[in-house]
Amino acid sequence: MLESILCLCTLAGVIDLAVDWMTDLKEGVCLSAFWYSHEQCCWTSNETTFEDRDKCPLWQKWSELLVNQSEGASAYILNYLMYILWALLFAFLAVSLVRVFAPYACGSGIPEIKTILSGFIIRGYLGKWTLLIKTVTLVLVVSSGLSLGKEGPLVHVACCCGNFFSSLFSKYSKNEGKRREVLSAAAAAGVSVAFGAPIGGVLFSLEEVSYYFPLKTLWRSFFAALVAAFTLRSINPFGNSRLVLFYVEYHTPWYMAELFPFILLGVFGGLWGTLFIRCNIAWCRRRKTTRLGKYPVLEVIVVTAITAIIAYPNPYTRQSTSELISELFNDCGALESSQLCDYINDPNMTRPVDDIPDRPAGVGVYTAMWQLALALIFKIVVTIFTFGMKIPSGLFIPSMAVGAIAGRMVGIGVEQLAYHHHDWIIFRNWCRPGADCVTPGLYAMVGAAACLGGVTRMTVSLVVIMFELTGGLEYIVPLMAAAVTSKWVADAFGKEGIYEAHIHLNGYPFLDVKDEFTHRTLATDVMRPRRGEPPLSVLTQDSMTVEDVETLIKETDYNGFPVVVSRDSERLIGFAQRRELILAIKNARQRQEGIVSNSIMYFTEEPPELPANSPHPLKLRRILNLSPFTVTDHTPMETVVDIFRKLGLRQCLVTRSGRLLGIITKKDVLRHMAQMANQDPESIMFN
Amino acid sequence: MLESILCLCTLAGVIDLAVDWMTDLKEGVCLSAFWYSHEQCCWTSNETTFEDRDKCPLWQKWSELLVNQSEGASAYILNYLMYILWALLFAFLAVSLVRVFAPYACGSGIPEIKTILSGFIIRGYLGKWTLLIKTVTLVLVVSSGLSLGKEGPLVHVACCCGNFFSSLFSKYSKNEGKRREVLSAAAAAGVSVAFGAPIGGVLFSLEEVSYYFPLKTLWRSFFAALVAAFTLRSINPFGNSRLVLFYVEYHTPWYMAELFPFILLGVFGGLWGTLFIRCNIAWCRRRKTTRLGKYPVLEVIVVTAITAIIAYPNPYTRQSTSELISELFNDCGALESSQLCDYINDPNMTRPVDDIPDRPAGVGVYTAMWQLALALIFKIVVTIFTFGMKIPSGLFIPSMAVGAIAGRMVGIGVEQLAYHHHDWIIFRNWCRPGADCVTPGLYAMVGAAACLGGVTRMTVSLVVIMFELTGGLEYIVPLMAAAVTSKWVADAFGKEGIYEAHIHLNGYPFLDVKDEFTHRTLATDVMRPRRGEPPLSVLTQDSMTVEDVETLIKETDYNGFPVVVSRDSERLIGFAQRRELILAIKNARQRQEGIVSNSIMYFTEEPPELPANSPHPLKLRRILNLSPFTVTDHTPMETVVDIFRKLGLRQCLVTRSGRLLGIITKKDVLRHMAQMANQDPESIMFN
Repeated sequence: MLESILCLCTLAGVIDLAVDWMTDLKEGVCLSAFWYSHEQCCWTSNETTFEDRDKCPLWQKWSELLVNQSEGASAYILNYLMYILWALLFAFLAVSLVRVFAPYACGSGIPEIKTILSGFIIRGYLGKWTLLIKTVTLVLVVSSGLSLGKEGPLVHVACCCGNFFSSLFSKYSKNEGKRREVLSAAAAAGVSVAFGAPIGGVLFSLEEVSYYFPLKTLWRSFFAALVAAFTLRSINPFGNSRLVLFYVEYHTPWYMAELFPFILLGVFGGLWGTLFIRCNIAWCRRRKTTRLGKYPVLEVIVVTAITAIIAYPNPYTRQSTSELISELFNDCGALESSQLCDYINDPNMTRPVDDIPDRPAGVGVYTAMWQLALALIFKIVVTIFTFGMKIPSGLFIPSMAVGAIAGRMVGIGVEQLAYHHHDWIIFRNWCRPGADCVTPGLYAMVGAAACLGGVTRMTVSLVVIMFELTGGLEYIVPLMAAAVTSKWVADAFGKEGIYEAHIHLNGYPFLDVKDEFTHRTLATDVMRPRRGEPPLSVLTQDSMTVEDVETLIKETDYNGFPVVVSRDSERLIGFAQRRELILAIKNARQRQEGIVSNSIMYFTEEPPELPANSPHPLKLRRILNLSPFTVTDHTPMETVVDIFRKLGLRQCLVTRSGRLLGIITKKDVLRHMAQMANQDPESIMFN
Repeated sequence: MLESILCLCTLAGVIDLAVDWMTDLKEGVCLSAFWYSHEQCCWTSNETTFEDRDKCPLWQKWSELLVNQSEGASAYILNYLMYILWALLFAFLAVSLVRVFAPYACGSGIPEIKTILSGFIIRGYLGKWTLLIKTVTLVLVVSSGLSLGKEGPLVHVACCCGNFFSSLFSKYSKNEGKRREVLSAAAAAGVSVAFGAPIGGVLFSLEEVSYYFPLKTLWRSFFAALVAAFTLRSINPFGNSRLVLFYVEYHTPWYMAELFPFILLGVFGGLWGTLFIRCNIAWCRRRKTTRLGKYPVLEVIVVTAITAIIAYPNPYTRQSTSELISELFNDCGALESSQLCDYINDPNMTRPVDDIPDRPAGVGVYTAMWQLALALIFKIVVTIFTFGMKIPSGLFIPSMAVGAIAGRMVGIGVEQLAYHHHDWIIFRNWCRPGADCVTPGLYAMVGAAACLGGVTRMTVSLVVIMFELTGGLEYIVPLMAAAVTSKWVADAFGKEGIYEAHIHLNGYPFLDVKDEFTHRTLATDVMRPRRGEPPLSVLTQDSMTVEDVETLIKETDYNGFPVVVSRDSERLIGFAQRRELILAIKNARQRQEGIVSNSIMYFTEEPPELPANSPHPLKLRRILNLSPFTVTDHTPMETVVDIFRKLGLRQCLVTRSGRLLGIITKKDVLRHMAQMANQDPESIMFN
């Protein structure tokens, strides 16, 4: 298993490096070596002083390189155009690669992995091609500046790695169950690598991705997540030995009164989640059902163009989304020079390094507020249209960005209120003049948690991931309050998170472990055949000919057939898989002498007694599953649903006193659950 | 649910306060108010300076109070005697209370809670009396200075609270499943309160205690654990706003070369775990089977006396175990004045507050090493005899103490080696003279994790609990390395942790989810009746009289009987519980007219056709379970074990083509598993 962690870490490192380089390529190029990113270019240059890290002669913007101008309107327009062109090129390459080589590489992959872990098989979804193309296109789309993240797709990449390496060992390749355990662990490692949060990764795998999570998997996932996090740190391509994606350190505690804005952020997160899921699903449904879906390349090109055109003028949308989040989470220290930290300092005061008291906002902060407001609206709208296009796209980062922007704005608002109105009753108890009471970065973090929670409905894993980012139990209550509020608000408008909504939209046969089934229906109400329908297609143990069975197989498309003693007694003896029946008949016809269409097929241990001149009978007991799962017709559906979930069944036979009455498949269960929830059962398509 | 968290937090607070007071009562008494502990007494006194916090005139040792002597041999002996007397008094009170009022209050309670959560019912185990007596006696035994902790029993107390409050709401009291979910959450809250580690608590409940842990429970447990941790902090009786039990902050990172001693500590932890489990189980078995078990009070008195006599002279065993651990975990800062921090300072150096370079050890450190070595041997021996006595006793603290002592000693050793031999090849790369390279406190923490892991075989939860104590991802690799090594070493000598070993010893019917069953036996090999045994006791649906059934009930002690169509066809129609049968017959005989011994009992929907003069038949369909769980005789036992575990079954009927062949109970499964593991199946007793 260490191989697949190494594979994942290498890929994650390569993705990080390549994204850095290509994102900067949209702005300019390094003269000393074109494969250096802006930061690397200036770090390796000797002419750079520490203060001017960002500006060095070796790094040339496109306008400098092409027309030798670095300022002025024409230079700006040239840079703008180059930015758009590169974005379009990256996006076009990505969508073409996905279309041509690996259609499964699109999306975040988490809905499909959830479905696979619940027992459904999607061939090729975790294949080598998907792995390769997803990695390459992920770099391209993230660099193109589209509103999407690489964290969700990294889970898919991790699962592909896990699947690839487990297929090399016969222990795993032959046992579906064991393979799924490896995938659960891989998903944990994926999140662990994405955020540097090993415990959060394990809980994410447990809460969001996995279907069945035995203790052994818990242990393995934890091990995989830890090794992955630390391997990535040791092969760190940046050399800054950060373990977590957005490391922050705050210097002040939070106060009870701040819970109010935190809960407001939770409400915002819940509303954003609802809005996003509704609009995104509506748009995706339109894509599936109208002509829109026929032009995926054009769609990507148009969305990329619009994103690039709107994003460039605003510094907060031009920079990469993870940089934006990082900046928003940050506490304004004394050395901070960004626009967001442009506060008016008291000239009489010496500047301590930490623990700066609240200060009035300067011009920069007010400008930033406007730009952030515009960025917020832009991100909200564009993310809805981006997620679900035929390119790899994750939701974690855009959701967190929306929340972080809203949170930071609320935080600055509260900070300025507290500074200017120390005497208000709500501030008087905890915020004295000259104290550092409000940390806007904390608000950004709480907002990010709330929005991510609203979209995905994660709870424990969300809080733990965010808690691992800060590394202190101190802020767990604000995060918790926001996560709970956000989940409650979002659940009030609809129980489904974005992943379940996409599973539903795509019609995957996924039996959610979270839904409770409390209706009082019985197995007899759900089983097929219904009253008035033709009787169940069954095989008898010793009276059907090969031809009979071939006709049955041709006329139906069932996955298997129950085998009964005889049509009269209908006593069940086993279950035969369609695939194995076809194979057995084919083999027998080719290789076994005397097998003709008239041969009797028998599932008993001894061949039936036949007239002397009858053809050679065909023995099929070895393909008979002698322990098919049965329930009685009086079994409450609550129990049946529970059994389907816990044992991961695909079908279950219904009997009464040993007589076969019918069959319940997973799809029947899903349709029945939809019906009971007052949804149209036909809305559940299975493709 | 908030009530039970509040109940738990209040009890935990009261226990903390009372233990503090009573532990100090063994040494002396506060003159201003006898209910003050030493610390409180001196804090409230005005005459105390900050430096002399520990010495104040209001606090009088027994020798000062009784014979007005504070120094000298006679004062020492008097204090010694008073210490022993108080210890004996507390222990005697505790064991008597447990014996008289609540025998279930003894032990840690975790094996029993595991069993209860797996579906077995132990009446009164989570009752009000157990709660009350366990709380009171827990204070007494911890104060008596016995080598035991309060953390394990706190989990039991938490479950009692949860059970009590859930019995008030009909939603929980009527549904065993929901009740068990509450208990899982309560267990998480218990650990959370004990260590201040909410995430660790949740994972402990998931990994060690719970049997079935759906996502809803995860979420609830997390909420309960968080609320519990923060409620305890806000009602904190000490006013030091600590959240975790042993909060530590280290100033130096760890180095790769240190992994070697960490792994050695892991090996030590594994060996200690094996030794402890073997010896403790052997001793407990002897207690169960010989005359020793008849004198529980005497046993407690003797062990307490021996503990007190040996513990008093050594300062590291005299102080309470949690204080000891706290001191061992601590990094030696500049202000530290304890014996363990008696290093020789370089007089030419100014003393910085943190980040003190490695220094040569002083006399105090060498004395401490001797005393710690003696304390280690003492703790190892006495804990083996203490755990399992008829008093509440937890294992976390004693195990951690053993590990912390060993770890600190190794840590000091490595530190001095590194100081005196900077030039050795193993130190040269990372430990320059004048640097602070080795933190002995970290070794103590790693040792504690290793020993706790060796005894309980916890993995993820252990690492997370320890990680929450330090609050930094930095030290997760050393902890992990030690935990894994310790588990491997201990598993090499026997797969069972201490809780499973005690479950086994007590013969609880517990089907461990961790054991894999890979043998190729079939249901037919395990079911009763075996070949040659009398046929299964069954009821027929419409041909047995009330008298027949009463005889059957009298002659057997089965929990229930399968109901078949007739003795000839043996087609199964349902299952009737013994308890409900008895009740139904009793009620019918008392209240229904015409029911006599000759009445026919029928389970069909319509009464059978009877001769005209026959007595009134008795209708019993409503007590018939029409959906008993069945498997075919060809079902592999691997599947059967899986079904028993996942669905929490107590029995399962075996059929072939609808004909009833036999029954498999949970006990049959357990016996079969023991047999397959080459154990004597009769060694599994069920009491």
